[in-house]
Amino acid sequence: MAEILKGAPVAAALNEKIQARVKTLEAGGVTPTLAIVRVGVEPNDISYERTAQKRCAAVGVEPRSVTLPEGCGQGRLIEILHGLNSDSSVHGVLLFRPLPEYMDDGAVRNALIPEKDVDGITDASLAGVFAGIKKGYPPCTAQACMEILDFYGIDPKGKRAVVIGRSLVVGKPVAMMLLSKHATVTLCHTRTIDMPSVCRNAEILVVSAGRPAMIGREYLSPGQTVIDVGINILDDGSLRGDVNFADAAEIAAAATPVPGGVGTVTTSVLLAHVVDAANF
Amino acid sequence: MAEILKGAPVAAALNEKIQARVKTLEAGGVTPTLAIVRVGVEPNDISYERTAQKRCAAVGVEPRSVTLPEGCGQGRLIEILHGLNSDSSVHGVLLFRPLPEYMDDGAVRNALIPEKDVDGITDASLAGVFAGIKKGYPPCTAQACMEILDFYGIDPKGKRAVVIGRSLVVGKPVAMMLLSKHATVTLCHTRTIDMPSVCRNAEILVVSAGRPAMIGREYLSPGQTVIDVGINILDDGSLRGDVNFADAAEIAAAATPVPGGVGTVTTSVLLAHVVDAANF
Repeated sequence: MAEILKGAPVAAALNEKIQARVKTLEAGGVTPTLAIVRVGVEPNDISYERTAQKRCAAVGVEPRSVTLPEGCGQGRLIEILHGLNSDSSVHGVLLFRPLPEYMDDGAVRNALIPEKDVDGITDASLAGVFAGIKKGYPPCTAQACMEILDFYGIDPKGKRAVVIGRSLVVGKPVAMMLLSKHATVTLCHTRTIDMPSVCRNAEILVVSAGRPAMIGREYLSPGQTVIDVGINILDDGSLRGDVNFADAAEIAAAATPVPGGVGTVTTSVLLAHVVDAANF
Repeated sequence: MAEILKGAPVAAALNEKIQARVKTLEAGGVTPTLAIVRVGVEPNDISYERTAQKRCAAVGVEPRSVTLPEGCGQGRLIEILHGLNSDSSVHGVLLFRPLPEYMDDGAVRNALIPEKDVDGITDASLAGVFAGIKKGYPPCTAQACMEILDFYGIDPKGKRAVVIGRSLVVGKPVAMMLLSKHATVTLCHTRTIDMPSVCRNAEILVVSAGRPAMIGREYLSPGQTVIDVGINILDDGSLRGDVNFADAAEIAAAATPVPGGVGTVTTSVLLAHVVDAANF
């Protein structure tokens, strides 16, 4: 039976550190502040915004919502971001994406300065992750995977790590972060041939495939740590990861559940970034 | 006996395309121009500069040397780069690095606009390579590896590719470029455990380890394509790659020689970037 790598204690430990740092900042007259920028009224964005607001309040980070109407011009959005860049009372900016289709994603993203890019969306942050240096911030979900490994004492150094998925928010950055921790890293994806045997060979398996319960017993082997980044909403409204959890629990040495795993840690990473940014 | 993947015909094919494009540009009144920026008198830089100048001349690209004295201030260098950014007669800029130690490498690199960053040194170019999108230019040596595979009809799609080395000029970018071509990519380095068995499992092996003839028969297996990026100068002045070429020639399906392999193609890639930039 695998050790269940729950996200809650990881988030709690991060939150405790964040709260201590918020107190120090407050004593110095600084309230760490996160601007949440949203264009339009996409229900998922609004739901995530509410959660983020609550989580901010819980640790003493001030959320500040900046909402632009649907159809708002790209120039106006960039102006808003420039304003937030120069507003010293704002330390981090979370911009909901995908942006409306008529906007140039690159132009908008890169209007933000890396010092306030707490969700790792600018080219500077991406280059920082790629180079393995401190520049901007890495994408929060990718870092949440690393925080879980760290909390549970699983050192990637010298281990064979396999990452399924090559997105810019999870697969590629988590691969670079595992590499910085001296893992031997393999990136798999839909074109990978015989993925089960590649995955069985992993000591750390990070799954961000976007397909519910895709990773079953034929991908797993004893001794593995399995990090499931998948968040799939089934027809009945329930959440399911990319890993068949029953198989992982039976075969692997350790596995994150869904819900209650990586997703639980992501917002705490975002808030830790805001506090970092406020300390800058 | 392995097929020898010589760089010369790859460079010749690239140069032919470059010359044709230069003619078209010339007909439109544009002379593609590469500014070569050097601080101080490092002999390796001067030697590479001479070679680059000759290679420019051979295909009709105009080289323009900009030389700053040793001890020159960082502000002055950044001013020069800004000048080149706005000089419409200059299409690409090659900046010799490492810069003097008193300069902030990031600040200087990023003073260049990605549109003229033909050697892939800006954060924007790195983010482009990481994201797998066309933005700035990838580092020339990494792209030279891909040009060799392409020229010899070796499609990475679905293949197991192993990259030894995790530098920003070769290992990481070549890994991302192989990933964009749908290979399953593994990154190895000095902390990798049992590297020989990881390498034997590769169908494409790219070696950028920086140690002469480090990769011998225990790393190799039949059917492999071996790309040797190493350029090591031995005590007797001769060049040696990172791969024991005799072993690769005996065991692998195909292998690049050193000298006469990847290094032969790199300058052509640089010039191709300059012509691309002139077409922008």
